[in-house]
Amino acid sequence: MSMNSFGHFFRVTTWGESHGPALGATVDGCPPGVAIDEAMIQHWLDKRKPGQNKFTTQRREPDQVKILSGVFEGQTTGTPVQLMIENTDQRSKDYGDIMDKFRPGHADITYWQKYGIRDYRGGGRSSARETASRVAAGGLARQAIKQIAPNVQITGYMVQMGPRKIDRTNFDWAQIEQNPFWTPDAAAAEDWATYLDDLRKSGNSVGAVVEVVARGVPAGIGAPVYAKLDTDLAAAMMSINAVKGVEIGEGMAAAELTGEANADEIFMGQNGPQYSSNHAGGILGGISTGQDLVVRFAVKPTSSILTTRKTITKSGEETEIITKGRHDPCVGIRAVPVGEAMMACVILDHLLLHRGQIGESRGRIG
Amino acid sequence: MSMNSFGHFFRVTTWGESHGPALGATVDGCPPGVAIDEAMIQHWLDKRKPGQNKFTTQRREPDQVKILSGVFEGQTTGTPVQLMIENTDQRSKDYGDIMDKFRPGHADITYWQKYGIRDYRGGGRSSARETASRVAAGGLARQAIKQIAPNVQITGYMVQMGPRKIDRTNFDWAQIEQNPFWTPDAAAAEDWATYLDDLRKSGNSVGAVVEVVARGVPAGIGAPVYAKLDTDLAAAMMSINAVKGVEIGEGMAAAELTGEANADEIFMGQNGPQYSSNHAGGILGGISTGQDLVVRFAVKPTSSILTTRKTITKSGEETEIITKGRHDPCVGIRAVPVGEAMMACVILDHLLLHRGQIGESRGRIG
Amino acid sequence: MSMNSFGHFFRVTTWGESHGPALGATVDGCPPGVAIDEAMIQHWLDKRKPGQNKFTTQRREPDQVKILSGVFEGQTTGTPVQLMIENTDQRSKDYGDIMDKFRPGHADITYWQKYGIRDYRGGGRSSARETASRVAAGGLARQAIKQIAPNVQITGYMVQMGPRKIDRTNFDWAQIEQNPFWTPDAAAAEDWATYLDDLRKSGNSVGAVVEVVARGVPAGIGAPVYAKLDTDLAAAMMSINAVKGVEIGEGMAAAELTGEANADEIFMGQNGPQYSSNHAGGILGGISTGQDLVVRFAVKPTSSILTTRKTITKSGEETEIITKGRHDPCVGIRAVPVGEAMMACVILDHLLLHRGQIGESRGRIG
Amino acid sequence: MSMNSFGHFFRVTTWGESHGPALGATVDGCPPGVAIDEAMIQHWLDKRKPGQNKFTTQRREPDQVKILSGVFEGQTTGTPVQLMIENTDQRSKDYGDIMDKFRPGHADITYWQKYGIRDYRGGGRSSARETASRVAAGGLARQAIKQIAPNVQITGYMVQMGPRKIDRTNFDWAQIEQNPFWTPDAAAAEDWATYLDDLRKSGNSVGAVVEVVARGVPAGIGAPVYAKLDTDLAAAMMSINAVKGVEIGEGMAAAELTGEANADEIFMGQNGPQYSSNHAGGILGGISTGQDLVVRFAVKPTSSILTTRKTITKSGEETEIITKGRHDPCVGIRAVPVGEAMMACVILDHLLLHRGQIGESRGRIG
Repeated sequence: MSMNSFGHFFRVTTWGESHGPALGATVDGCPPGVAIDEAMIQHWLDKRKPGQNKFTTQRREPDQVKILSGVFEGQTTGTPVQLMIENTDQRSKDYGDIMDKFRPGHADITYWQKYGIRDYRGGGRSSARETASRVAAGGLARQAIKQIAPNVQITGYMVQMGPRKIDRTNFDWAQIEQNPFWTPDAAAAEDWATYLDDLRKSGNSVGAVVEVVARGVPAGIGAPVYAKLDTDLAAAMMSINAVKGVEIGEGMAAAELTGEANADEIFMGQNGPQYSSNHAGGILGGISTGQDLVVRFAVKPTSSILTTRKTITKSGEETEIITKGRHDPCVGIRAVPVGEAMMACVILDHLLLHRGQIGESRGRIG
Repeated sequence: MSMNSFGHFFRVTTWGESHGPALGATVDGCPPGVAIDEAMIQHWLDKRKPGQNKFTTQRREPDQVKILSGVFEGQTTGTPVQLMIENTDQRSKDYGDIMDKFRPGHADITYWQKYGIRDYRGGGRSSARETASRVAAGGLARQAIKQIAPNVQITGYMVQMGPRKIDRTNFDWAQIEQNPFWTPDAAAAEDWATYLDDLRKSGNSVGAVVEVVARGVPAGIGAPVYAKLDTDLAAAMMSINAVKGVEIGEGMAAAELTGEANADEIFMGQNGPQYSSNHAGGILGGISTGQDLVVRFAVKPTSSILTTRKTITKSGEETEIITKGRHDPCVGIRAVPVGEAMMACVILDHLLLHRGQIGESRGRIG
Repeated sequence: MSMNSFGHFFRVTTWGESHGPALGATVDGCPPGVAIDEAMIQHWLDKRKPGQNKFTTQRREPDQVKILSGVFEGQTTGTPVQLMIENTDQRSKDYGDIMDKFRPGHADITYWQKYGIRDYRGGGRSSARETASRVAAGGLARQAIKQIAPNVQITGYMVQMGPRKIDRTNFDWAQIEQNPFWTPDAAAAEDWATYLDDLRKSGNSVGAVVEVVARGVPAGIGAPVYAKLDTDLAAAMMSINAVKGVEIGEGMAAAELTGEANADEIFMGQNGPQYSSNHAGGILGGISTGQDLVVRFAVKPTSSILTTRKTITKSGEETEIITKGRHDPCVGIRAVPVGEAMMACVILDHLLLHRGQIGESRGRIG
Repeated sequence: MSMNSFGHFFRVTTWGESHGPALGATVDGCPPGVAIDEAMIQHWLDKRKPGQNKFTTQRREPDQVKILSGVFEGQTTGTPVQLMIENTDQRSKDYGDIMDKFRPGHADITYWQKYGIRDYRGGGRSSARETASRVAAGGLARQAIKQIAPNVQITGYMVQMGPRKIDRTNFDWAQIEQNPFWTPDAAAAEDWATYLDDLRKSGNSVGAVVEVVARGVPAGIGAPVYAKLDTDLAAAMMSINAVKGVEIGEGMAAAELTGEANADEIFMGQNGPQYSSNHAGGILGGISTGQDLVVRFAVKPTSSILTTRKTITKSGEETEIITKGRHDPCVGIRAVPVGEAMMACVILDHLLLHRGQIGESRGRIG
C-alpha cells in the first residue's frame, strides 16, 4: 500500500513538491530489454511544459528528465527506473499573506487540516507540477508498450473549453498537433483562442473536457472486478489534479439510452470480431474488446484567479485573497499529455497483468 | 495485488459467480470491538434484493448473509470477516444457444477472449449478482464507521432515469424511502413509474443516474496523490457493473464554469470552516473538506433485452440473439444500495488510513 | 494491503477460526484453464488432518474442502477460487478457567492486548487449524504449477525431532511416505517413535526441523530486492504457527564457512549450467539458479502441555494453568504438508510474476 | 505490488545500482510533523560506510544523503520522502573478463538468466551497495518511532564470526560501539581482529551472525496471519544481501526444546505482565509481548575472493575467475547497521498499522 503509487504491476510512485529541489517517479515492474529513447520521453515532457505559449503559465521550467537507475546501455534492466526532474525555478519570493490564508478551491485548507503542515510554496505536493512525473513515467510506459503490443497508439485532445464543444463532424486527427489546444477541430481552435485570450486578460479561468483514445489495444486485457480496465482508467484520470468527472465510451449520457440503442452489435471481420458502434468505449465487463478505448475527463477551472475571493486564515479570521502569480487560464490544455501518460501506464500495467496470469489471450474466435 | 479486492486498509475481496453454490466477501482490516447487528446488514441486502416489485428482476433469491468468521459474541475480533450468501436459485435450465452465442453489451465475448472459458450460467463472475457481496461488506463498513465517526450518514438516490431528470426544487430526503426508485422527487417517481412500465412491457431497458451523498464526514481524510478520496470513490463506483461515468461535485459540468463561478468561498462558522457553495463535492486536493461528499454515476441500460440483436458465436459465425430471462428494466434502481455500500467502504478505509498515518487531524483552525 | 494475505500475484487470503462455523482460503490470480482434481487437493489436506495416528492430536475433523467459486466444469476460470472447510468438531464444552487465564506460549495474551477480544475457543484465529486453509490453497497452486512448469516436484520431510537429527547418509526419498514422521531416514523414524511416545505419555511436547525441497524449478524466477525468492520463502515459512527460524541452503551454518568453501563453482552441463555444490540452496541474488530449492524451518514445541505452568488472568491475578485437551506432542509432523503448501504458493507466485514482467527467461547461456 | 518495496504502511521502495549516478529510497506513509535531524540519518549511514577500517572494503564513498522531498522546514510533511545518495566512485575501469564471466556465489548468472541483461559494473542492482538506501530509510523510521513510541531502542551487534561465537557471559552493551565488529564481547573483538586479518591477507572471506534487539516495543503490535511481526522481520532480514538464515528468539534451537522448557511463564509486574524467560523473542502469535524483540541472521561469506574458482561465460564456455577488487573480508560487519535499519522500518510499519486498525491497545490487564 502506498498512497502515492498507482498500477498493479507497472507500479509508479511519484514524489516531490512544486518548489522543492526536485520531483520524479520511481517506476517498478518495467520489463527488461526495452530500448529507451530519452529524447522521446523529453518530447512528452515538453508537450506538458509551461510557458509554451500565452495560453499556459509563464513559469519557466526546462523540465529536463534525468534517468538515475534501471537503464543500462540504452535498455531497461528490469529493476526500478528513477526519473528525476530538478526544479530550477525556485526563486526566493515574498509569499506574503499566502502563508496564512487558504486559497479557495486549492488544497491549502485540507492539507492543513490533515497534516498540520502548510507548505505555502506554490501548493507543495498538491501542485499540478506533480503531473510532470506522470508524463515521464508515461513516456517510459509508451516505450515498453511498443515491445509488447506495437500497434497501440494513444492520442489525447481537447473536446470542450468552457461551454464551447467541438463539432465532431470537423474531427481531423492531423489537426491535433497544429494548434495550442490539441484539438482535432480547427474551427474550435480558432474560436477558443479569442475566447481564452479574453478570459486570460480579465484574470479569470475556465474548465475543459479532454478525451484520450487508445487504438490497437488487443482484446482481453483488464480483469474483474476491482481491477477492471475502466475502474483503473477512472482512477488514473480522477487522480489528476482538478479533474471532477470521468467517462468511458458513452459516459454519463449512457443513462439516457435504451438498451436497444446502447447495444453494440457484433459481426465477424477478417481479423476477428467487429462492432456496429462503440457505446461501450472499448470495454465490456472490465475487459478490452479490441475497439478503441475512449476516456473523457472534465478539468475544473484553475482556482488561482485575479478576482478577490473571501477566505479565512489559519487562525480562523475571515479575510479576502487575490491569487496573483503565473497561472494557466485553462489548465485543461496541459492536462492533455497527462491524460495520455495515464492511459499509457494503465495499458502497460494490464498487458503485464494479463501476460502474468494467462500468458496470452486464450479464447480464439472463429 | 488482487484483481478482485478493493480498499487500502479496509480490504474487501469478493468471490463467487451468479449461479455457483455461493458468493461473498472476505473482509480484512476491520477494527475489533465493532458491535455487529446482522439484521442491519440484512436490511441493506434486502434493499438490493431482486423481486421486490415489478421494476426489478423476478429472480427469487433470499440473499441471506451468513457470517462465517471474524465475529465473536456479537463483536468483530479484528480478524477477517467472511460474509457468505448462498445462491438458492440455481435451477437447472436449458441455456440453449447462449452457450455458444455472445450477448451484445455483456462480458461474454471479452471473458472468452481473455480466459478461454465460457461460464454461460447467467454471466458467471461478470453478473451484477456480485454486487450483493459489496452490499454485505458495506453493511459491515457502516457499523465500523459508527465506532470512529458516528456522525457520518450515507444516502443514495436516483436523480435521472433515461432522459428524465428530477427537479431539484422538489428534493425531499423523506421521499427517498417512499418509492421504488429511491428518488427524493415524488413527482419524478410517479412519472418514472409509467415510463418504466411501458419500457418493461416492450422488453426494452433504460439507463439511470444515481447520486450518493455522505454527510458528517470529518475534514482531513483522503491522501495525495493516487489514494485521493475522489480517486478511490471514482474507482469504487466505476467498478460497479454497467457504470460508464463518475462525477464528484460539479462533475463534467465543472468544465463549463469559470474560476470565479467555481470557487467555493470560505467563511468561519461556529464549529470550523464553512463554505459558500459545494462545487467541489466536499473534496479539495483529494482530501475531505467536511462538507457533504457528493458522487454521481451513470448506469447504462441493461443489455438483456427482448429485441433481436446481431452477434456471433464462439466459432465466429454471424447470428442473432434475443436475451430472454428475468431482467431489470432499469438496473440503476438496484445500483442505489450498491453505491451506498461502496461509499461506506471508501470512507471507512480512509478513516483507518488517516488514523494510522496521523492519529488524528492535526491542523486546527482558529 | 491485507494482513491475512500472502503472495504478490497468486494471492491467498485465509479466514476463519478454530471453532467457528468454517474456515478457508480466498485465492485470486490463479491462471484459467487449470484442470482441478478435487481428490488431489483433498489428498494434501488428509496428510495434514489430525487424528491420523497416535502422534497427532485426536481431534476429529474430516477437513473436507468445498470449492465455492472459480472452478467451472472442472477447470479454473481465472476468477477467485473460494476453498471452504467446515468445522464439524465444534462440540460445546466447558472452557472453564481458560476463558480468563492466558496460556503461556500461546497467543492468548497478545491477542487480548491487541484486540481486547478473548476468543477462548481453541485459540480462535491463532490456532494452527488455520493451516488447513494454506494446504488447500497449496493444493490449488500445485495443480496450476503443472500447467506452467510441469517438472517442479515439491517434497517436505522432517530432519530433526528435539535434539535427534537424521543421518543424511540414510537419506531415501522413498522412505518419506512410509512413516508417520515424513522422514527420509528409516532408522530415525524408529528412534523417534519411541522417543515421542514417551514424551506424549508424560504430557510433554517437543520441537522439530522440517526441510522442504523443490526440484525442477526453472532458473530465473524471483526478483530483487524485497520480492526475492528467499525473502518470500522466509516469510511464507515464518508465517506458519510456531515457526521460529528459517534457513535457505546452508542457512545459519553459512556463517561458519569461508568464501572459498561456500562458493558453488559453475560448470556447463548438457542442458545448461551445473554447479559443484548447492550451498546457496538454489538461489543467488534472490533469483533461482535451477538447482534444488532448499528451505528448512524450526517448529517450537507445542505450548499446550500437561505440566502446571505459572500465568496470570485478564484481571492481572497470578495463577497456574494446565492445558488439557487434544494436542500434538510434536506439531512439526503436521507442519510438513503445510511447508510444502507454502513452497507451492511461492513458486507459482513467482512463475506468474516472471511471466508478467518478462514473458520468458531471456538470457540464454551457450 | 512492487518487487522493490517493503512495508505495508510505512512503505520503502529502493532504487539504484552500484555504479549508476545515484541510488536511494522513496518512502511513503511517514507520519507528518516528525522532526528530522539530517545529521542523525547521516550518522547511521556513516556506520555502514565502506573504508572505515582495514576490515571493510576500501571503496571510498562519502554516502552523503540528500532529502529531495517530503520534508519542509525541518519536519516531515506526510508526503513521500525521497532520500538520494549519489555515487561518487564510478571511476572508469577495465572490467576485463568480468563482462562475460559469471562470478560464483554472485547474482551475475541468475540476473542474466532472468533479464538477459548483464550489468557488470560491480553487480548493478544486486550489489550490497543497495543497503545504503535501507539505512537511510531506517534513519527516517527511527525518528518517526520517537514520535509514537519514544521508549523503543534498537541495537544490533555481531555474535559470531566464522565458527567463533561470543561468550554471552561477557555481554556488555557499552562495548558495542568500542570495536570495529560491533560486538558486545571485548574478548571476542580481540580474537576476531587477528582471525580476520589473516583471512583478509590470504584473500579469503568468512560469514557471520548478527543479532538485533529492540527494547521498549509496546505489547500488541503485529498481526495475524501473514503480516505477523515475526514474518515481516524474517522477510526484512532475509531480503538483505547474503543473508541465508533468520531466527526469532530461540530460533532453530527451538526444535531441541520440550514444551516444558520452552514455555515463558507469565507473572504480574508493576507495569503489566512480566515473563520468566524470553524463548519467544518477544513475539507470540505474530504479536509483540512487550519483551525484547530478538532477531538473528546469518550472513554468508563474501563471494568475491582471491582464490581461483571455476565458472562459465555467457556463451557457455568453461573457464576460471579470480575476483579482484575492493571487498569486505566479512561483510557481516557492515550488515549490523542494515539489520538495525530493517528492524526500525518493521517496527514503525506495525505501529502505524496498529494505530490505523485499532487506535490504541485495547485489552488492558489488571
